[in-house]
Amino acid sequence: MKLLRWGEAGAEKPGMLDGAGTMRDLSSIMGDIAGDVLSDKGLAALRALDPATLPLVPESARIGAPVAGVGKMIAIGLNYADHAAEAGMQVPPEPVVFMKATSSICGPNDATEKPRGSEKLDWEVELAFVIGKRAKYVTQDEALEHVAGYMLCNDVSERGFQTERSGQWVKGKSHDSFAPIGPWLVTRDEVADPQALPMWLSVNGQGMQKGSTATMVYGVAYLVSYLSQFMTLEPGDIITTGTPPGVGMGMKPPRFLNVGDVVELGIEGLGTQRQEIVGA
Amino acid sequence: MKLLRWGEAGAEKPGMLDGAGTMRDLSSIMGDIAGDVLSDKGLAALRALDPATLPLVPESARIGAPVAGVGKMIAIGLNYADHAAEAGMQVPPEPVVFMKATSSICGPNDATEKPRGSEKLDWEVELAFVIGKRAKYVTQDEALEHVAGYMLCNDVSERGFQTERSGQWVKGKSHDSFAPIGPWLVTRDEVADPQALPMWLSVNGQGMQKGSTATMVYGVAYLVSYLSQFMTLEPGDIITTGTPPGVGMGMKPPRFLNVGDVVELGIEGLGTQRQEIVGA
Repeated sequence: MKLLRWGEAGAEKPGMLDGAGTMRDLSSIMGDIAGDVLSDKGLAALRALDPATLPLVPESARIGAPVAGVGKMIAIGLNYADHAAEAGMQVPPEPVVFMKATSSICGPNDATEKPRGSEKLDWEVELAFVIGKRAKYVTQDEALEHVAGYMLCNDVSERGFQTERSGQWVKGKSHDSFAPIGPWLVTRDEVADPQALPMWLSVNGQGMQKGSTATMVYGVAYLVSYLSQFMTLEPGDIITTGTPPGVGMGMKPPRFLNVGDVVELGIEGLGTQRQEIVGA
Repeated sequence: MKLLRWGEAGAEKPGMLDGAGTMRDLSSIMGDIAGDVLSDKGLAALRALDPATLPLVPESARIGAPVAGVGKMIAIGLNYADHAAEAGMQVPPEPVVFMKATSSICGPNDATEKPRGSEKLDWEVELAFVIGKRAKYVTQDEALEHVAGYMLCNDVSERGFQTERSGQWVKGKSHDSFAPIGPWLVTRDEVADPQALPMWLSVNGQGMQKGSTATMVYGVAYLVSYLSQFMTLEPGDIITTGTPPGVGMGMKPPRFLNVGDVVELGIEGLGTQRQEIVGA
């Protein structure tokens, strides 16, 4: 099942794809894609619907982030060995954990704001997942049952703010529009193996990142269990899992984003995104 | 005006103190203390009420965190020169910014959970404030009009998780119950100068921290303006501003918290808190 949210930013309505990949409107059936809706029971109720009976979403509708009511957005750093190498850092002995402000979450095709004073705006294609069931001290074996589903995410980063402004990384990860998510929340039953998903990112049509979640150091089940030792994961929380090589910071010379650049990215089965860079 | 929330965790109701310092129930008047209620207009509407006409809150009621709908909780590190010294660090040239998980927010007298495997559980009395009006690229001059009010906060920290587990600090700052807040949200009109507030913290009755927000390096107005350059601050967001000297980590030898210890703390005009340490 592919769930989505559509409409003006801040006033999105719930929707889903039908079998033909057409967007259908769920707003007469439910409130929003958040909280209990993300539980196994909540998702089963949606799965029982016949999408063909639902109204069509206007084709021109903006797509928003596919989840609402996000309590926290957690990100993992240096989680691909070859990306760590290009960043000039070692693969850490445990996951590096940081936060992105929830106010940075936006739709998959919304423009990316280049913050004032930004000179090192960068991209990171990532696999993100959404928590469907409260997780505190869970084991790896039971971890995936706490995941509602998966999404594509661009962990947009300002490297100067992230690493040259007295810390911590959150400072370079949290500007408005720095977390485009979606287009869809793909429920976990449709993702046979989250550690075997090809992913890519291009800038102005030129390929920059090409990888697979297969080379992730700490996988999804490990991360759910690991994070749940430090904080409680709640329904609607988003975790984004790090990026493969090919970010602008790692190039020689580095290549950062400017107003007018267009970033496109995708993960197999999770859809694609397109962002144009604009001024803040 | 002193606003509060009372009742069982997760089902708190709004309330306020009357002129005699007695808790009154606002639940027949309003929904929750969140969002638009925190705007100047929302607070003015509450100020127009006569608390004496409101029902009493049961004296035995639990007090919750005084704000709901918190989108993010931002914390400032090393923001008192003498605390930086005891931590063996320099005062940073710009504020150090990190996040606490919003799931760590709790009431002022709720027990503090010692996480499994924790050996370095520590305390930090801090001045926190709540955003009442959206702030993006605001100047210092206009900063304080974006603040709804002030609160006492204990920025509970697990130093091993914070600094010895591959980073970032959020890992040691986010366990459930690591952000006791309140008892009250004291609206900003009642705090003549947020940079002149005496503060203290004791463990098992022994004084540990004694300071004043007067020695804060980066004050409230500076922080609102500074943070708003990196991310948008939204109504309900909480910022906690760092701690003066006297944390357990800075003692020789270090002194950390164990199950059964009792932490008490206060800031003049903002009330007091009491937490007993329990197992997780």
